[in-house]
Amino acid sequence: MRNRTHRSGSEHFVWRLRGSGGELMRRWFFLFPSWSLGTRSKVDYSYCSIKSIRQEDIVAKKPKQIAIYGKGGIGKSTTTSNISAALSVAGYKVMQVGCDPKSDSTVTLRGGEYIPTILDTLRDKKNVKTEEIVFTGFNGLYCVEAGGPAPGVGCAGRGIITAVELLKNLRVFDEFDLDYVIYDVLGDVVCGGFAVPIREGIAEHVFTVTSSDFMAIYAANNLFTGIKKYSNNGGALLGGVIANSVNSPYAKHIIDDFVDRTHTQVIEYVPRSITVAQSELQGKTTIEAYPDSDQAKIYKGLAAKIAAHTESKVPEPLPGQELRAWAASWADQILAIETGEVRSAGSGI
Amino acid sequence: MRNRTHRSGSEHFVWRLRGSGGELMRRWFFLFPSWSLGTRSKVDYSYCSIKSIRQEDIVAKKPKQIAIYGKGGIGKSTTTSNISAALSVAGYKVMQVGCDPKSDSTVTLRGGEYIPTILDTLRDKKNVKTEEIVFTGFNGLYCVEAGGPAPGVGCAGRGIITAVELLKNLRVFDEFDLDYVIYDVLGDVVCGGFAVPIREGIAEHVFTVTSSDFMAIYAANNLFTGIKKYSNNGGALLGGVIANSVNSPYAKHIIDDFVDRTHTQVIEYVPRSITVAQSELQGKTTIEAYPDSDQAKIYKGLAAKIAAHTESKVPEPLPGQELRAWAASWADQILAIETGEVRSAGSGI
Repeated sequence: MRNRTHRSGSEHFVWRLRGSGGELMRRWFFLFPSWSLGTRSKVDYSYCSIKSIRQEDIVAKKPKQIAIYGKGGIGKSTTTSNISAALSVAGYKVMQVGCDPKSDSTVTLRGGEYIPTILDTLRDKKNVKTEEIVFTGFNGLYCVEAGGPAPGVGCAGRGIITAVELLKNLRVFDEFDLDYVIYDVLGDVVCGGFAVPIREGIAEHVFTVTSSDFMAIYAANNLFTGIKKYSNNGGALLGGVIANSVNSPYAKHIIDDFVDRTHTQVIEYVPRSITVAQSELQGKTTIEAYPDSDQAKIYKGLAAKIAAHTESKVPEPLPGQELRAWAASWADQILAIETGEVRSAGSGI
Repeated sequence: MRNRTHRSGSEHFVWRLRGSGGELMRRWFFLFPSWSLGTRSKVDYSYCSIKSIRQEDIVAKKPKQIAIYGKGGIGKSTTTSNISAALSVAGYKVMQVGCDPKSDSTVTLRGGEYIPTILDTLRDKKNVKTEEIVFTGFNGLYCVEAGGPAPGVGCAGRGIITAVELLKNLRVFDEFDLDYVIYDVLGDVVCGGFAVPIREGIAEHVFTVTSSDFMAIYAANNLFTGIKKYSNNGGALLGGVIANSVNSPYAKHIIDDFVDRTHTQVIEYVPRSITVAQSELQGKTTIEAYPDSDQAKIYKGLAAKIAAHTESKVPEPLPGQELRAWAASWADQILAIETGEVRSAGSGI
């Protein structure tokens, strides 16, 4: 990975994060793990936006655009934010675009504070300026939240469509001279709206975060179907799978088998870690809160691999019936191992 | 609850379920709980459809239509199928309409077998007959799956829109002289498509399945926002909340507090149970597999309450910022209890 410092030519008014996070709630995490994200922060972050950019300082270049999909609750935003933070501390200029109607993608890059979303801002006024939708976070990283429509109204993916359009019209990527734009996209329902970064070929490389949970793998397989569909028409291709929460005995084998069968690869195995929960309870990424921890090293390694990644491919999703049969076969194997029936012949498991 | 037998006047060719389910995998469930649904079945169920209905036998009546929403993976289809099965064994004529692109809502009503979806069937042919989209399952219960579009293409809620339209055009409810139509709807992303049963006032009563997990409560709160939005225009109202997996110490209190603040009620508390997993590994509902179990009694009680339910209301969803503050406050309380700080003053917790 290249390791260089920020350009200093332009007058970006980058407001650094200040203060430290709230107290630690180690034991609480084990009770309600999914409650941890963004619910705890005593940090008083104002919505610090980018104030001005001198046009003459702008050096247009094409940033590397990456989309990271994953089922809600699987660790998609946690992983994405840590990748963004790791790339930022490595010296790259990074923008993270949250594409989940829940609008909490960038919350750990902003000390636990939410930023106004593009859709909300557009609801209030017609002409929106860059500084009203782009906010700075940890280490000068740029944060954007696409937002979502009111529940029950229109397309849930409208936030992404609108965000992509607006960022393009405002020439935001040119202005900030970015190295990386990372889209953090909800992968539960890969409808037309959520498929925009793939379909339009906006992202050069797509990654997906999955655990060995069937619902997460089902969502990943759906994503592969979407990628394959648009692969002949300039759509984005698949970089690989980020295997999350791989602490349980069979999790790694299940994910490995899934990627083998779908002709893709695991980019990194990320273990479940209390450090991540501790960081998020402070409203921070692990890269910010515990930069020297083992988990931070894993995220840094993952970010390095994504930065170095150049060749993405067309995945081969399993047809629905085959995916179900595959899941049933794993259930059989796990049962057999548990009961000791095939212990001697249990090759590779 | 009324308790009556099926009408025998019409010539429904109801093909009853035959055979017993696959072997039990008790220990496996603990390893990968979410893998349990519909992945294990040795039952050879053909796609047994309704063959013919004599028009003269049809007595039109308006069935009670109920929509049950919930975040994917929270136990929405498990709960819905057990309610349907309980109503069926109580003598009612029930149709369950799966409205999740995953199309596995009715799988435990059909011995673990999937049925062709409405969208898939319409893809193959233009004029579809009732017997091509309605299939019988446990105890003569009628099963329909709306289906979903190809990943990445169009609206994920299109299956629901199409299903509602087709069922209406074919006058399916009139033909089958139903007592209950139960829509099992994915509640993760309440976009326009998934809101159809609410928006169009198709459902008379809406219920939502939630655990104390923040993501599930977030989805429920979004649903409430959708219901409130359409409540003045003939939209469906909220019957209440089905609290699922309430075994952990604070789960009940968190859900109770949420329903208090949103002006609704808990209809039933359903504990997490190994019996449910054991049933589903056989491709069955608990009502079918373990009809005399404690869990079956809970589902029967829940079904009775839903059958007797007459008055639904407009919920008061919490605004986003308030919901997050509420979640943070619960985190504080749990921490305080865990550390013993407020043990003496811990009223009601």
